[in-house]
Amino acid sequence: MSYDHGNIFASILRGDAPCIRVYEDEYTLAFMDIMPQMDGHVLVIPKEAATTIYDLSESAALACMKTVQKVGKAVEKAMEIEGTTIFQHNGKVVGQTVPHFHFHILPGSIFSAKGLKSHAVEMADPAELEVFAQRIIKHLQ
Amino acid sequence: MSYDHGNIFASILRGDAPCIRVYEDEYTLAFMDIMPQMDGHVLVIPKEAATTIYDLSESAALACMKTVQKVGKAVEKAMEIEGTTIFQHNGKVVGQTVPHFHFHILPGSIFSAKGLKSHAVEMADPAELEVFAQRIIKHLQ
Repeated sequence: MSYDHGNIFASILRGDAPCIRVYEDEYTLAFMDIMPQMDGHVLVIPKEAATTIYDLSESAALACMKTVQKVGKAVEKAMEIEGTTIFQHNGKVVGQTVPHFHFHILPGSIFSAKGLKSHAVEMADPAELEVFAQRIIKHLQ
Repeated sequence: MSYDHGNIFASILRGDAPCIRVYEDEYTLAFMDIMPQMDGHVLVIPKEAATTIYDLSESAALACMKTVQKVGKAVEKAMEIEGTTIFQHNGKVVGQTVPHFHFHILPGSIFSAKGLKSHAVEMADPAELEVFAQRIIKHLQ
């Protein structure tokens, strides 16, 4: 699949679309999922143009893992849970909705119906997301 | 969480327990999940002693990503699907069953009930897993 520069995450990276940021470095960006499956649902994306994990360069793959390690730990502390599920979809057929590689960080289980909303369906209140973002950012420091 | 050397993946790495291997290199091992959630369900583990993603060294994190890229593509070809979901659990509370870091490669969706079995519940027939393993190995070459 060739990379689609019109996707929403590309717009966020260009600064053309807003996001509720929790972390950024030279290679990656982490922000609140605007359609969270539970409170504290964060996305980590590389700054390079990669559609799936199979398109990621070695340096972007490592950078994404390092950001997941850093942000995921902060998500656990912020949401007061001793665990996180990390997942990502490659391909429309398995449920990838935005064609730019992204890791999901979820402070909970993907296989328990308890508190898990549908994937990429319901918009959250940005003000509420901002509260979670601030809690996560506090634990990054 | 301190690492538990008695876990089943540690036994597999020591050669004390069997596995249906699809790929191995200096840093990682990939094998069929013995309790698959769907056909073609593969696990990728680092050879270092790490319980969660937060315990992974930088080199093991990169090595796991590279093996997921290599094996995941082969899983897609072997299972004739243009997509894979990659996921992993950190912590018992979110459903981690074996306390050794592992990426799941699933040739399908985790959020569609269609064809998705429960996580780590039902043992598969090793002979059947061997058939899938051979198909995946063929596409690695």
